[in-house]
Amino acid sequence: MSKPILVVGGGPSGLAAAQALAGAGQRSILVEKENRLGGAPILSGYAKLVPSGEWAKDAIGGMVTRAESSPLIARELGATVQQFSGEPGNFRAQLSNGRAVEASAAILCTGFTHFDSVNKPEWGFGTYPDVVTTTQVEQMISSGQGVRCPSDGRKPERVAILLCVGSRDRQIGREWCSKICCTVSANIAMEIREELPNCHVYIYYMDIRTFGLYETKYYWASQEIHKVKYIKARVAEVTSNGERLVLKAEDTLVKRPITIPFDLVVHAIGMDPNVDNKTIASVFGVALEEHGFIGKRNSYGTFGETSRAGVFVAGSATGPETIDDSIGQGKAAAIAALGLVHAQAGAVAA
Amino acid sequence: MSKPILVVGGGPSGLAAAQALAGAGQRSILVEKENRLGGAPILSGYAKLVPSGEWAKDAIGGMVTRAESSPLIARELGATVQQFSGEPGNFRAQLSNGRAVEASAAILCTGFTHFDSVNKPEWGFGTYPDVVTTTQVEQMISSGQGVRCPSDGRKPERVAILLCVGSRDRQIGREWCSKICCTVSANIAMEIREELPNCHVYIYYMDIRTFGLYETKYYWASQEIHKVKYIKARVAEVTSNGERLVLKAEDTLVKRPITIPFDLVVHAIGMDPNVDNKTIASVFGVALEEHGFIGKRNSYGTFGETSRAGVFVAGSATGPETIDDSIGQGKAAAIAALGLVHAQAGAVAA
Repeated sequence: MSKPILVVGGGPSGLAAAQALAGAGQRSILVEKENRLGGAPILSGYAKLVPSGEWAKDAIGGMVTRAESSPLIARELGATVQQFSGEPGNFRAQLSNGRAVEASAAILCTGFTHFDSVNKPEWGFGTYPDVVTTTQVEQMISSGQGVRCPSDGRKPERVAILLCVGSRDRQIGREWCSKICCTVSANIAMEIREELPNCHVYIYYMDIRTFGLYETKYYWASQEIHKVKYIKARVAEVTSNGERLVLKAEDTLVKRPITIPFDLVVHAIGMDPNVDNKTIASVFGVALEEHGFIGKRNSYGTFGETSRAGVFVAGSATGPETIDDSIGQGKAAAIAALGLVHAQAGAVAA
Repeated sequence: MSKPILVVGGGPSGLAAAQALAGAGQRSILVEKENRLGGAPILSGYAKLVPSGEWAKDAIGGMVTRAESSPLIARELGATVQQFSGEPGNFRAQLSNGRAVEASAAILCTGFTHFDSVNKPEWGFGTYPDVVTTTQVEQMISSGQGVRCPSDGRKPERVAILLCVGSRDRQIGREWCSKICCTVSANIAMEIREELPNCHVYIYYMDIRTFGLYETKYYWASQEIHKVKYIKARVAEVTSNGERLVLKAEDTLVKRPITIPFDLVVHAIGMDPNVDNKTIASVFGVALEEHGFIGKRNSYGTFGETSRAGVFVAGSATGPETIDDSIGQGKAAAIAALGLVHAQAGAVAA
């Protein structure tokens, strides 16, 4: 009987990988550093997901429930991999909880880290309580309390969502695009408009990247059905006039400075490489790509290969990624690992 | 022994699905309507692929070679599925070549159809020989002849690439974004600049959607290393002054009409639903989504489910998609189908 496959990270891609392996009759060991499965959508309390419109607690929560009820998925929560050695078909991992496990292959589904808006101080986060992040707005919605100004609990009448906070910004060392923030922001804007029909919602953008079929469901629907307003602008700073936040920007279409008061300013925060990536790269002996995400070989042969044979990678560990594509990649890496197990078994049998 | 899995379509997603199944020891039958495997990248003669930079004939050609040499992949070329009946685990397909095959599951990897630029007549395609499509430029590059003006074979000194031809255009019934044309166009622009260093290349755009890590490799590199120029504009029409093409547009940043002569105008053509989708939907009994692509259920459970149990879908059959994601989805759908086979085998054994 072949050894189980080690899946590192219990977010969407890791859950997808473990579940796909179980479906094919293959055992896995799912190691998650937190004490709870689900990754960012669960741990950060996301609301309704793009593009399904399902609540994260149902959609990703359902994935967690299925993983927890599978006899083929062993779970190691609150644990990290501290040492990893061996060869494809015969790896050995030492976990932080003292256990040692054997594995035929490993799939790194170690995800990303949300950009910390305090690294963009001129845009007011950390200074003004009514400057929040998309993650905080997701939490306001998913908690059922609704979108309110943290300073005094009032319903905002004017909300600005600033795109590309921690993305496409070389001044702070983030030149990549975080891929999904445009669409998530359009989704949040529509949620706010549904809950607070009298609230005006503005999205400040460089380019609107609601790619593929998101165009219909988010770009057009947010403007035409939900009357969200888009302003192409370079944001200069967020300050306060004592009563409201004041957002100064340059409208890049009319080439004029614009100063508009808002009750709530939302940073659409980007996706950084997982802060643990240097450790993960060192433990697993895999190379990072230029921005600090985990490097992935091309997709034409075996999917999700890292620089180390038998160690695969999937999802936002490799760069900014959507939840759907993270899930798809987790499953694609799963069948790649399964192929390795199959080849090993064939070699042993021969 | 379980029945093979039917994979319909021999492009990147179909090749990926069949290869992944073979890797796991599962037989498949790959049905391709053309007489040659490879899908759009091979049949349309793509040049260097995004983002690997590998030639399509090597990258996807290698996938074809591996599929052709696998004893677990039966191939039916120049054939379509004309009838499809049965239940998961026990389907029967009648092919156009007279053969009938049995299958445990089916994966539709039936791809897309390139937008036909004659449907955008005011932009000059079909009227002026030096108005071409991105696919034609790919062919010029991959053939080794280089990028030349079709009218007289001269090297162009000024090239304009128009984005969103057949995308984000409600006037012609294409409101979706085709996702990858921005990045492909930046890639082509850089290729032209490398071959013809004295040629000026302009990209006319609405929004630049080089999402995720494409931002570094295409958006920044095209501008900073290769000096490609981007113009945010609404294109009005392409005409001729007798010597050169004349491109009239409104620069939406300076709000002024601009009229610029070019030697070559390239339409960055979008991805339409496969023209055969109504037939495919009828034969397989699956629902299409609102734009005419094949409908796909959410990704949280079994990946790539259509409206019919046991029939999965992957890649650009579901909407505009990158090659890498098409491959990933093909493999993800493969393990979904494998899970179905495994469950059926368990049910039979029990």
